Amino acid sequence: MKTHKIFNDPVYGFVQVPYGPLFQLVEHPYFQRLRRIKQLSLTHYVYPGALHTRFHHALGALHLMRQTIATLKGKGVDISPEESEAVQIAILLHDIGHGPFSHTLEHTLIQVHHEELSILFMEKLNEELDGQLDLALRIFKGEYHKPYLTQLVSSQLDMDRMDYLNRDSYFTGVSEGVIGYHRLIKMLTVHEGELVVEEKGIYSIERFLTARRLMYWQVYLHKTVLSAELMLIKTMERAKDLIEQGATLPAPSSLCYFLENRDLTAEDFKSRRDELLSVFSRLDDTDIAAAVKEWVFHEDPVLSYLASGLANRRLFRLDFSYDPFTEQDQAAVLEHLRSAPELPEEGFPYFMITGKETNTSYSSSKDEIRILLKSGEMVPMSQLSDTAIQQRMFTKYYFCYPKLKGQSVIAGQ
Amino acid sequence: MKTHKIFNDPVYGFVQVPYGPLFQLVEHPYFQRLRRIKQLSLTHYVYPGALHTRFHHALGALHLMRQTIATLKGKGVDISPEESEAVQIAILLHDIGHGPFSHTLEHTLIQVHHEELSILFMEKLNEELDGQLDLALRIFKGEYHKPYLTQLVSSQLDMDRMDYLNRDSYFTGVSEGVIGYHRLIKMLTVHEGELVVEEKGIYSIERFLTARRLMYWQVYLHKTVLSAELMLIKTMERAKDLIEQGATLPAPSSLCYFLENRDLTAEDFKSRRDELLSVFSRLDDTDIAAAVKEWVFHEDPVLSYLASGLANRRLFRLDFSYDPFTEQDQAAVLEHLRSAPELPEEGFPYFMITGKETNTSYSSSKDEIRILLKSGEMVPMSQLSDTAIQQRMFTKYYFCYPKLKGQSVIAGQ
Amino acid sequence: MKTHKIFNDPVYGFVQVPYGPLFQLVEHPYFQRLRRIKQLSLTHYVYPGALHTRFHHALGALHLMRQTIATLKGKGVDISPEESEAVQIAILLHDIGHGPFSHTLEHTLIQVHHEELSILFMEKLNEELDGQLDLALRIFKGEYHKPYLTQLVSSQLDMDRMDYLNRDSYFTGVSEGVIGYHRLIKMLTVHEGELVVEEKGIYSIERFLTARRLMYWQVYLHKTVLSAELMLIKTMERAKDLIEQGATLPAPSSLCYFLENRDLTAEDFKSRRDELLSVFSRLDDTDIAAAVKEWVFHEDPVLSYLASGLANRRLFRLDFSYDPFTEQDQAAVLEHLRSAPELPEEGFPYFMITGKETNTSYSSSKDEIRILLKSGEMVPMSQLSDTAIQQRMFTKYYFCYPKLKGQSVIAGQ
Amino acid sequence: MKTHKIFNDPVYGFVQVPYGPLFQLVEHPYFQRLRRIKQLSLTHYVYPGALHTRFHHALGALHLMRQTIATLKGKGVDISPEESEAVQIAILLHDIGHGPFSHTLEHTLIQVHHEELSILFMEKLNEELDGQLDLALRIFKGEYHKPYLTQLVSSQLDMDRMDYLNRDSYFTGVSEGVIGYHRLIKMLTVHEGELVVEEKGIYSIERFLTARRLMYWQVYLHKTVLSAELMLIKTMERAKDLIEQGATLPAPSSLCYFLENRDLTAEDFKSRRDELLSVFSRLDDTDIAAAVKEWVFHEDPVLSYLASGLANRRLFRLDFSYDPFTEQDQAAVLEHLRSAPELPEEGFPYFMITGKETNTSYSSSKDEIRILLKSGEMVPMSQLSDTAIQQRMFTKYYFCYPKLKGQSVIAGQ
Repeated sequence: MKTHKIFNDPVYGFVQVPYGPLFQLVEHPYFQRLRRIKQLSLTHYVYPGALHTRFHHALGALHLMRQTIATLKGKGVDISPEESEAVQIAILLHDIGHGPFSHTLEHTLIQVHHEELSILFMEKLNEELDGQLDLALRIFKGEYHKPYLTQLVSSQLDMDRMDYLNRDSYFTGVSEGVIGYHRLIKMLTVHEGELVVEEKGIYSIERFLTARRLMYWQVYLHKTVLSAELMLIKTMERAKDLIEQGATLPAPSSLCYFLENRDLTAEDFKSRRDELLSVFSRLDDTDIAAAVKEWVFHEDPVLSYLASGLANRRLFRLDFSYDPFTEQDQAAVLEHLRSAPELPEEGFPYFMITGKETNTSYSSSKDEIRILLKSGEMVPMSQLSDTAIQQRMFTKYYFCYPKLKGQSVIAGQ
Repeated sequence: MKTHKIFNDPVYGFVQVPYGPLFQLVEHPYFQRLRRIKQLSLTHYVYPGALHTRFHHALGALHLMRQTIATLKGKGVDISPEESEAVQIAILLHDIGHGPFSHTLEHTLIQVHHEELSILFMEKLNEELDGQLDLALRIFKGEYHKPYLTQLVSSQLDMDRMDYLNRDSYFTGVSEGVIGYHRLIKMLTVHEGELVVEEKGIYSIERFLTARRLMYWQVYLHKTVLSAELMLIKTMERAKDLIEQGATLPAPSSLCYFLENRDLTAEDFKSRRDELLSVFSRLDDTDIAAAVKEWVFHEDPVLSYLASGLANRRLFRLDFSYDPFTEQDQAAVLEHLRSAPELPEEGFPYFMITGKETNTSYSSSKDEIRILLKSGEMVPMSQLSDTAIQQRMFTKYYFCYPKLKGQSVIAGQ
Repeated sequence: MKTHKIFNDPVYGFVQVPYGPLFQLVEHPYFQRLRRIKQLSLTHYVYPGALHTRFHHALGALHLMRQTIATLKGKGVDISPEESEAVQIAILLHDIGHGPFSHTLEHTLIQVHHEELSILFMEKLNEELDGQLDLALRIFKGEYHKPYLTQLVSSQLDMDRMDYLNRDSYFTGVSEGVIGYHRLIKMLTVHEGELVVEEKGIYSIERFLTARRLMYWQVYLHKTVLSAELMLIKTMERAKDLIEQGATLPAPSSLCYFLENRDLTAEDFKSRRDELLSVFSRLDDTDIAAAVKEWVFHEDPVLSYLASGLANRRLFRLDFSYDPFTEQDQAAVLEHLRSAPELPEEGFPYFMITGKETNTSYSSSKDEIRILLKSGEMVPMSQLSDTAIQQRMFTKYYFCYPKLKGQSVIAGQ
Repeated sequence: MKTHKIFNDPVYGFVQVPYGPLFQLVEHPYFQRLRRIKQLSLTHYVYPGALHTRFHHALGALHLMRQTIATLKGKGVDISPEESEAVQIAILLHDIGHGPFSHTLEHTLIQVHHEELSILFMEKLNEELDGQLDLALRIFKGEYHKPYLTQLVSSQLDMDRMDYLNRDSYFTGVSEGVIGYHRLIKMLTVHEGELVVEEKGIYSIERFLTARRLMYWQVYLHKTVLSAELMLIKTMERAKDLIEQGATLPAPSSLCYFLENRDLTAEDFKSRRDELLSVFSRLDDTDIAAAVKEWVFHEDPVLSYLASGLANRRLFRLDFSYDPFTEQDQAAVLEHLRSAPELPEEGFPYFMITGKETNTSYSSSKDEIRILLKSGEMVPMSQLSDTAIQQRMFTKYYFCYPKLKGQSVIAGQ
């Protein structure tokens, strides 16, 4: 009798999923849907291998969770079979609420944070599985009396981050993201109910945090990726605006629903849970990609311009700056756009995209990584004099607009 | 002045594309479209990482071609800059004619072999680039007086195969496909105009052929992958039949075109080249995937049953046999289907799928791999007594049908 | 309380050794001595990374054994804790009897097969550990009633071979030797007391056997490696002969013992076990290497010529042939040597080295790999029509002699 | 005609050495001797794979140099064939002056820094090669008018460091040391004669420096490695002292020379260059290892105790502290030693080993890494606000002494 199903994973070799509720959840259409949601949105425009999905990531995080539980139990931490299964369920479903293109469209199609949706999905699944997710939900929400279980699912050193750094590094080919997860997991233990790292692990932690920070700037916030994602947001906004003005747009039915019913809130999802989850669960990357391709030939020149740029990878230029862009910059870009007769003037509001990105490599305020010294003392990572860890927050402002002659039109760029 | 554009590739690190015609071709919408055609069709249903595209494969094959050219020139083979560029163009575009889901739907949507389409696309591009592809076309068609250049593009030891074995191995995680391509390339040379392998390379060749053979059975012809692909073919056939019967099906416009205009031939494409290439080039995996998802909710129970199975990964059972299936087997499956009230009877012709797959690990008849002995003699690989290479062709028959209780209904399976 | 010691291993990440007899054995000077015996003798003259030791190999094989036991138990095979520990001990110590430069000098310094010595070492250790190796010895000798346990230690698919292919591949960089050991181990099970492979594993087995065969010709029997090893044998023979003639040679004391007491047999080792194991256990690669370096400056021109060639990597030429070398070949080489005034004539018997190497990729006669078909039938691998496995034995004859002008002096080479 | 010799390297695949002076140097006994000097001294006591040699490292650094030169030339940097060859020679020979166990015994056997010896060896080789090393020597000494060539050989971002981080990481298995050297090299360019990094490379640099820092604490200064190396130093010191007192020690002749002729200085080597280089070049790891093994059985109990501990890996305990150890600590250890009757009292001065290790992750004072901003400005790395780079120097004090009961005898440890 086989006790588990095996999944292939180039990152870890094989991933085992025990038969029972965990395998039932993997088989569920809600979870299968994650096969059609890429982990890294449009990052594949820069790193063509980055086509891996939330489905694969969730299985990978489950794999690390199982290794970590075995390690902790080997160190004498008391984890019951029920707790073990529950924390595995929690990590498996931690991203179940993600919609198409994950973070990129998180606040464009609906106005609900993906974690809120994850909880709604889990509650729905809990009903279907007769309460077998009760404990998982308590752990996920941080309501269980063993904080370290929640920390394994969500903290600055959780299985989510460990897996995505490994996985994103593997599929992009950016070796800088590789972390020694074997070593990291071996260093974990529990002290006074909290997840802690043994003292000799501090260099591994430092390296883990550095890897994450570098992946941010080299991959997640790569200027070309950001440009593509902003164009996708603007494409969707234009589509919603056209529909509001009465236009007809070819698009898969599930996408149409959210284009027509703009800005549904968490309140809406809670009050009409089953109905909205049902339609939302039919939506994934495929619908967006197919719609964009259709819109290349749409009569609206603004929509067509944006969609065509995405489909054929004619991306906007994006300038980064440590300072906010000025009114002069705005004027320069505007003049630049006016100089191009092919650009429809009604599109200018969609073509001048500004904003900012921030990245905090490590936060010393909230749920800090705890180090267990050989002396038995537990100290927050940021207080160890021997490391480079510090709370640093960087903000970069961006200005994204059609590339006409290749050069920036903003002075100093 | 930068002389080339760099692409990220986890398989090789970085891939360089020289500015000039090669980069122009990469930028062309025809080529960008390959970003939306997966190399391995539905293999990701079994190997979830196998989402890599024909775009990435073409760049990888280009990379190996550039390394091989450098190696050959280092051995004194006379290759002019024009020939070098042409053979690079030829390998870059060797798969440009692939349609959605590559081989799976190759004869379902249209009746044209992808290599014929590649030539049509190349001829069209050649017009756009004012004849810069003349030499590449001659090499691709085998009409150039240096056969080894054609052999680098298409033979039993071409850059196509070297790249796809590496790449498919990387993204599936099946380490059995890893080939020592560095070593293989170092062993290549040219003798009397033919591509040959130095004698000391015979074990690498043997290994290369074994790797390929194993990848066939472990990945390319994996029974679950095959089942999914057969279901996709049947889904498309049902869609075409419904349309022929006058039904309306939601689908992206480019797909609709080929569902309505069934079975276009190579003749059609030649006589109406620009028109048909234009619409065909708008078609990719996205359209098929979006259509299948919509059809889950279609009123035709057969179409809906197939589409739903694909979308939620409820795949048919597939039995392999070394012998053809018998009438008894047919009867057993038919009875099996009849026992399931949820199966619409008009769907039975789509639900009982039989056929065969063959795999020849190495062909000694056609364009055999040539070994250059130390003595200066050139012999075909199959004549070397010291290797396991032999012409072996295996045929497996399959029978694919809805899985009801998990067990095969065919005796002995 | 930690239950095991962790060793670093680039091949597998970490290797765990449980505290108790296994760790005691690792700590024993007999086992620590393996740190100074390279796995691949002089292979590092061609593959400079191949400096890994029998110590590391034994730990790696232990690691695979532990994974395999866990896999088998997960499939319901009944393995008691005592059996588990015993089979781990058996694999850990399977090479404990190897002397310096392993196989190279196996029959030069003493006349005992390394497996016989392994048993003697194990018996001695068993006395020291109060009989805790009783069961391990029975398994190692094939005297236990569960043949599969012995097969895990020694068969055509044992943990020894799996580890050394992985490890030799890693340290030489010859990727051809990489085997998918994760996949291979997952395919193992037990049927009627025998170790068997599930049917779907046949391609992995085929690949494993191919990898092994290729490693033989590409690494283990590489002509330059073979040349260096033959020179080392001849160096030792000359040293023994000089001592027999009354000469004094500087050398570490343990080596001196075996140079002076030539050709000790298994009988000697059994009758004087403690004494001879004690002196033999002091001998390792270090002693040979140090002696060779000293002998570069020895007054005997033959010894000095051989030692200097080894130390400065001026290796003999080696010609391979599928046929035995002829008297003409002998004469040609002899003439060649005579043409070089720097070569001392009394050295000619040491300078003309002939012999043969054979490699059987797979033996269908002895302890064949068994496949468990889905039908429940157990068949030997060689009877499956779908594989390339066959009993093939290749013999290559070699002729090794000083390289004077770089070219072979044997016709046709 | 082949233009270069190929060496196998698991880190980079293949390393090419052009025929001509570079290959002549590789073939020279001085260079071949590096095959017998491990890169990481006794690190293999903790990381059993770390047996790689200075020979392999030098070839690897040469490989990176060749890639870097090609990259720089591709960016328009003017490097003549003579300069290219010279800088390759300089990196190939940068470590030629290392003696046995590299840094460990650098100031124990003789009193000369290894770089001074490298220059002496290069000058000797330059004479043998008729001045072909003239330019290489000028570059190596920093006397050439293109500072970036010297910086490629020796700076905070030289080929030496890039290779050893890669290589040490590969052979130890500590993935934390892996650096994206492909990416790093692509970021290098030359500005105003200096080696600089393009702005977008700052995260790669940051990662490179972090990797190096972590490797220091995790590998190079690992407490067990340090303990073994200190024991080796003390063993040699005891041997020298015994010889000074008139004792006889079995040891290879080249080692005897330096034990008897203590503390030779750079002045000695310069004035008696040919004689001393000749004997020094006969000395390598083999001699030390063989001597230590012999000394296990020496009558002096101090020497025997130390040698036996090394041979059987019974290592001293080592305590680290951020503060210097106190007189109380000294007293505690002394009492501890006195409690063990097996410890010979005359050995106490060799058994109580104190000292300190410092590690500066990055130095902002000397030859700092320069960043070339997009604006064209060149700034030192430490002045970029967006990085974690800072001059940090950590000092750890150590106290190393025989482990009797496993626990530290120093309070608070």
